[in-house]
This record gives sequence, C-alpha cells and structure tokens, in this order.
Amino acid sequence: MNKQFVPHLTTALKGPLPMVESHLQERQAMIESWFRARWRGHKQPFYTSVDVRNAGYKIAPVDTNLFPAGFNNLNPAFQPLCIQAVQLAIEKMDLHVDRIMIIPESHTRNRFYLESVAALQEIIEKAGFEVRIGSMLPDLAEPMTIDLDSGRKLRLEPLQREQNRLHAGGFTPDLVILNNDLSGGRPAILEGEEQRLTPPPRMGWSDRLKSSHFTHYKTVAEEFAKHINMDPWLIDPLFRNCGEIDFMKKEGEACLQINTERLLRDIQKKYDEHEVKCKPFVMIKADSGTYGMGVLTVKNPDEIAALNRKQRTHMAKTKEGVKVTKVIIQEGVYTHETWGEQALVAEPVVYMIGHSVVGGFYRVHSTRSADENLNAPGMHFEPLAFDDCCISPEKHLAADARPNRFYAYGVIGRLAMLAASREMAGSAQATQKSEETV
Amino acid sequence: MNKQFVPHLTTALKGPLPMVESHLQERQAMIESWFRARWRGHKQPFYTSVDVRNAGYKIAPVDTNLFPAGFNNLNPAFQPLCIQAVQLAIEKMDLHVDRIMIIPESHTRNRFYLESVAALQEIIEKAGFEVRIGSMLPDLAEPMTIDLDSGRKLRLEPLQREQNRLHAGGFTPDLVILNNDLSGGRPAILEGEEQRLTPPPRMGWSDRLKSSHFTHYKTVAEEFAKHINMDPWLIDPLFRNCGEIDFMKKEGEACLQINTERLLRDIQKKYDEHEVKCKPFVMIKADSGTYGMGVLTVKNPDEIAALNRKQRTHMAKTKEGVKVTKVIIQEGVYTHETWGEQALVAEPVVYMIGHSVVGGFYRVHSTRSADENLNAPGMHFEPLAFDDCCISPEKHLAADARPNRFYAYGVIGRLAMLAASREMAGSAQATQKSEETV
Repeated sequence: MNKQFVPHLTTALKGPLPMVESHLQERQAMIESWFRARWRGHKQPFYTSVDVRNAGYKIAPVDTNLFPAGFNNLNPAFQPLCIQAVQLAIEKMDLHVDRIMIIPESHTRNRFYLESVAALQEIIEKAGFEVRIGSMLPDLAEPMTIDLDSGRKLRLEPLQREQNRLHAGGFTPDLVILNNDLSGGRPAILEGEEQRLTPPPRMGWSDRLKSSHFTHYKTVAEEFAKHINMDPWLIDPLFRNCGEIDFMKKEGEACLQINTERLLRDIQKKYDEHEVKCKPFVMIKADSGTYGMGVLTVKNPDEIAALNRKQRTHMAKTKEGVKVTKVIIQEGVYTHETWGEQALVAEPVVYMIGHSVVGGFYRVHSTRSADENLNAPGMHFEPLAFDDCCISPEKHLAADARPNRFYAYGVIGRLAMLAASREMAGSAQATQKSEETV
Repeated sequence: MNKQFVPHLTTALKGPLPMVESHLQERQAMIESWFRARWRGHKQPFYTSVDVRNAGYKIAPVDTNLFPAGFNNLNPAFQPLCIQAVQLAIEKMDLHVDRIMIIPESHTRNRFYLESVAALQEIIEKAGFEVRIGSMLPDLAEPMTIDLDSGRKLRLEPLQREQNRLHAGGFTPDLVILNNDLSGGRPAILEGEEQRLTPPPRMGWSDRLKSSHFTHYKTVAEEFAKHINMDPWLIDPLFRNCGEIDFMKKEGEACLQINTERLLRDIQKKYDEHEVKCKPFVMIKADSGTYGMGVLTVKNPDEIAALNRKQRTHMAKTKEGVKVTKVIIQEGVYTHETWGEQALVAEPVVYMIGHSVVGGFYRVHSTRSADENLNAPGMHFEPLAFDDCCISPEKHLAADARPNRFYAYGVIGRLAMLAASREMAGSAQATQKSEETV
C-alpha cells in the first residue's frame, strides 16, 4: 500500500492543522514515559479497540470496545506484532495457560464477525496456545464447522459447564477469553465459574455505561494533557447525561433538550476559542450498548421534540432488543479524513492487545457524511487496513505524514484503553464491596 | 523479498530431511508451553544473537552473543516487533527508565558495526526513550558525529563517571546498555557503578567461557528434547575441552589431540546412528572470545601436531590481542544452506530482545566452504535479512517451507538464550559467593 492509499485529511479548515499530531510527535519520549508509569502495577484489558475521529483540529475517541471484532481487517504484515503482544499479555497474567477458549457472539449470520473470530483464533494459536471456540448459541447441540470466504474454517463447539468449570467437548481451558459484549445480559453459565475469564463479564454492556467510561476518559485526558501542556479538549469529546428516558413515551425529553442545548453552547465556546468554523453537533447514544444502534445526530435541540415515530423506535432499542433507558449526549467530532476521488468518509479504529498497540483499520463509508455515526447496524463499510502499526512517530517527517498521524491514533487509543482499565478496576472494587455487603 | 531469495537447503543427504523442522512444527503448542514455563520468574539477557547452523539432519547453535551487532542487517519490516520487544524487556526490569546510554565497542573504523549501533539506537528511541552513545574510546575528548553510508548519523560522546554514576556530556542515564563484549578486559570505569548496567560486565569475554555456555546449553537441550521426545544431539553440538594450552610453545597439544580424536569418534557414532554420510569434523576455538578469531577446522587429529607457524600465530591470539590459553573443541555442524546459482554458503543468525524472537539474517559467504567458520575477522559477508520473523510455524505448509525453517531457528535461538540466562544466573551466584568470601 503506498501513500495514495491513505485517507486524505482535509486541510481546508482554519487553524493550525494538524496541531494535535505535531504536538504528540514532538513529545514522544515524554508521552511514552507517562504511559510506562501508568502501566506499572496496573492491569490492562486483554484487548481493546477504539473508534477514533480526526477532525483536524481535534482527535478523540468516540467508542471503546472491550470485546473487539474486526481482527480480520488488520494488516497481515503486523500479525507478528499481534502474536508477540498476545504472548506478553498472557505472560503478565502470571497464570499457567496452555489451553484457551474464546466465547464469541452468538449471531452466526454475520460472516464478517466470524472472520474476525477465526483471525483472533489464528493469532492466539500462532502465539503457541491450543484454542477452541465455545459457543453460547442456544440451539447448538453438536460442533459446527463454518467455511469462511477467506478460506478459513471456524469450528464452534457448544459451551458446557461441569460444576464450576467451563469446557467444550471435553476441552477444559486454563483461560477463557470473552468476545461477546453481553448486550443481552449476563448468562448464568458464566456466573461463578472458576477459570480465569477475561475481560470480566461485568465489563459487558449489561453492566457497563458509556458515561462512566467517558468520565474516566476525561480524567485521563486531563492528566495527560497537563503532562504535555495542551488543552485536553483537543483529545476529549465533551459530554453530558440525563436520568431515565423513555423515547416511546416521550419521558425525560425536557432534560435531554436542556442538556443538548448546554452541550452545544459549550462546544461553540471551544470552537470560538480554537477558531473552528464548523457547526457544533452532538451525538445522542444509548449509555449501554454498541453497534451504533440508537444513535442520533443533533445540531439543534428542537430536533428532539420533533422526532417522528420511526426515529423514536430506532432510538428506543439497542442490540438484542434491549430497551434504552439512559442516554449519553456526546460532542460530535467531525471526521475530516476522506478516501478516494469520491471523498468517502473514513473513520479510524485502533487495536490494542494488553497495552501494546498492534495497528488498526479505517471504516470507509460510501453513504454517510462527516457528522454521522459510521458504526451502525446493517451499514456496510469497506475496511482499509492501516499500513503503519501506530507505535512510533517519524521525527524527520511532516506532522501529518502517515506514521505521525497513526502514532497520534495509537496515543488516543491507549488513553481510552487506560480509561477502560480504570473503569475495570473501579467496577471490580464495586463488585467486591457489594459482595462484602452480602 | 520472495521465495527465490531464500537460501536453498540441500536435500542431497540421506535421511529424513528436514526432520528437525517437522518435529518442531508439529509440536509448537508443547514447545511454547515449555518456553513459557522457563520464562516465569527468570531473567533473560536484554538482547542475544545466536549463530545457527542447519545441516539438514541437525540444527544447532554454534555461538551465542550477548553483545550483539548486526541490528542494521535485520529486516526493516520487523522493526515494530523490535520496538515492542524493547518496550516489554524494559518494562520487565521494574525500574523507572527514561534515559538510556549505549556503550559500544571502541573500534570506530568498522562502519558495519557503527551502522548496527545507529540501528539499535533508533529502535530504542522509537520505543520512547532518550538514547545517547557513551564511548570508551581512549582518545575521544569531544563529542564526535559520524556520517554513515545509510544516511544515519552516529554521535559518540565520551563516557564519564562522577562518583558512582556514569554520564556523557551531562546526560545521566537511568539504564546503561552494554554493547561491548569486553574482550580486552573489564574497564575500571564500569566497576561498582550504581546505575543498572545490562548485560552485566561479568558476561563479557574477559570472564565468560564458551565451554560454560555449552555446558548449560547441553542441559537445556536435554530437558527440551525429553519434553518433545527427540534425540538432543539433533539440536546440540557435542564438545570437549582441555586444560591450559599454549599454541606457540606447543604446550597442551597432546591433550588437544586426544580429545579431538575422541570427539571425532563420538560424532561418527551419532552419524552412524542417524545414517549421516558426511565426514565428521571439529572446530577448535578460543574458549573466551568472539569474532571468529582463533578458530580451526580439524578432520584428523594429526592436523594439530602439523600446524605451521602461521596457523599457530592465528590460533594463539583472539580479538584485542588477548592470548588464547583455553580452547573448546566443538562438533562441526555442516552448513547445508546455500544461496544463489553459485551455491554460496549461508549461515543464519537469530536475534532476540528479552525472550522475544525478532528476526535475523543470513551471512552469505563467497569464499568459504560448508565446514568452515563464517564469522571470521576481515571476512566479508553479504547480509540477507530473514523475510520471516521466526515466531510461528505455518501448519499447512511443508516442513522446509520458510516459516517452518525460520520457526526452528527461533526455537534453537531461544534455547541458546535460555542457556545464557542460566549462565548469567550462575555467574551472579558465583560473584555473590566470592563477594561473601571477601
């Protein structure tokens, strides 16, 4: 892949572009030192993918996935990096691990997702482990082998439990890797099992809140920005949240409207400060959930009251039909990276295994505009693998040269992952407390 | 680099070729499990390079370097792997490290070596550290910048010491990386300094013995071979050593002759057992030292008494003019990898950072034969970077396909590195004991 195959970053906007990249590029040693101190003695999620948006004046995470898919979209050239990162992430667990089970999502129709599971299995096998797939598909009585378009074969075996140990067809793993975000709730089969299960089910969308993640992210971004002397807003999307909401019954809308108005005002203030000439917008999303369901782009608070029935239905439910009762109102970050002659919108996704950045890819979208959500159900995107692994800048190149742009994405990805690791530590503490109370 | 650019492994020999590769390929999960258990709670050298020889019927290490050069010969495609490995090796030190000093060899004329130091500096800088070169060149009063053929610049600064802390031009490192094998002895400036210095000077050639390394390697190879059920000889070169020797005075030659005879007999026995139709030979090398000085190829014990004056002078001294008083007699392993139409002999060198294999290269030699030493002073070789990083086999490919051959080299490299780590632990114990005695 050569230079022309990398999305173009629009520079028509006013202001010192690409400010964030150059600021990070110049401070690499300080940044890496800061991260090293953060990793010491702290646990990181086994793997993380982070949806990033680059508006030119600002680079920020918009979603942090602790059960990432898309491993099939990564650049095969960096597979060795993934393999090494898996070896080291497992080594750090200080646990005797030879056999690993992956528990995937239960939808078998999404062939892109199945390719990702197969790619993940391959990486872990190449790292020197025995790997099986334990599926929670309710009607899977026998092992099932699926032939994938890539030529890979994926063998799903029914997940079983004997006393407190999970197994699949007699294969009892030392470590269970969860690749299911538990949007539909925490299944009983995983409760109180005694093998190491990572990430813990309490980090699934049945328990996790985006607002809690972004509260941690805000603190992380502030600490980091102070260390390298920049305005944290340049890497952090503002957000607000309300209490309970019922889109169908139109309950809680007044609060939503007020907070949207306030958030739009706050964004405008930052735009004025940084001389950004764009129109502010917010994204209203389900506070729990993924796959971009229940996401709304709003530029004017009045749009909320004016939602039609179809839009309300769309907002009311997330993946697996779970009702949306809480939302997060997040600053919309324009995607100013475009791809090809048609200037298709491209959104980067950064991947980490342990705390190592291992690359990423762009979601290239043919039908959406720069202010919309690119990770929506049924939305087709073309993956474009990063041709750089994001782990170090090139000092002698321009700030927006590929290695430097990708390094910036790697930094933002790690900041979001650090926020997730604090979220994880916080929820572990909460779980412990509630268990102590019992 | 495509398939035709990889050395050809001669298959004209009798016997099940390539037996070792297929045996390792089929047992990857067992092998990696075994290594994982070995790394737990044990320190590995910061970096290691291992000269390997592939005779088809046998793959064995012939030299293990704890102060490796040749980083400039590695495949740039695997630089990210090196960067990640450096980050993780330093993370494991559990030490606050931001500033690193490299102490290189003091010969400034060898431009290949200087390219290696510059490449090493680049890798460590890209891993997010500040790096300076502290030189022990006796006549270096001022910093000196050398322009290298690669376009890199190497800045040497005089190594200084203030009380017990090393520095160079006011730069005081948190960690000192030694890239000088101390063939000329341990310099006073390094004794009792209080920064972390790795590898420790006691692992330099002024203290280290090849025979001690290969004694550890023998144990490692036996444990490993037992685990995967193979004859350890297939990965271990036999060796013997004598007491003191003086080539110029012809002292100790009788012992050398007897041991050479016995070793040749032992090799023949193994050749018969494995139906190898080659003529056994031994390599007689200085027990301390590197750079292939003082190396002799012997097929008949009578050759020893018949050595002429030139040959004796050649054997009597190693690098930096140190007198050879001890030798190791090692089973010669034929190099049955050849390169190009002229069938030039090619010898693989595998690189590790911490316990991670990060690739390697071939020394391709135009003037030597399969039974000679390829790493000799003044000998020019063409480096040929591995196009594979050696970290995992490909199950669906043939045993001698590149990833599988390279995986085998990665396994042998790690076994030698494990032997070196035991050697290091043993010498630390010995140092502690002698200090206790004082």
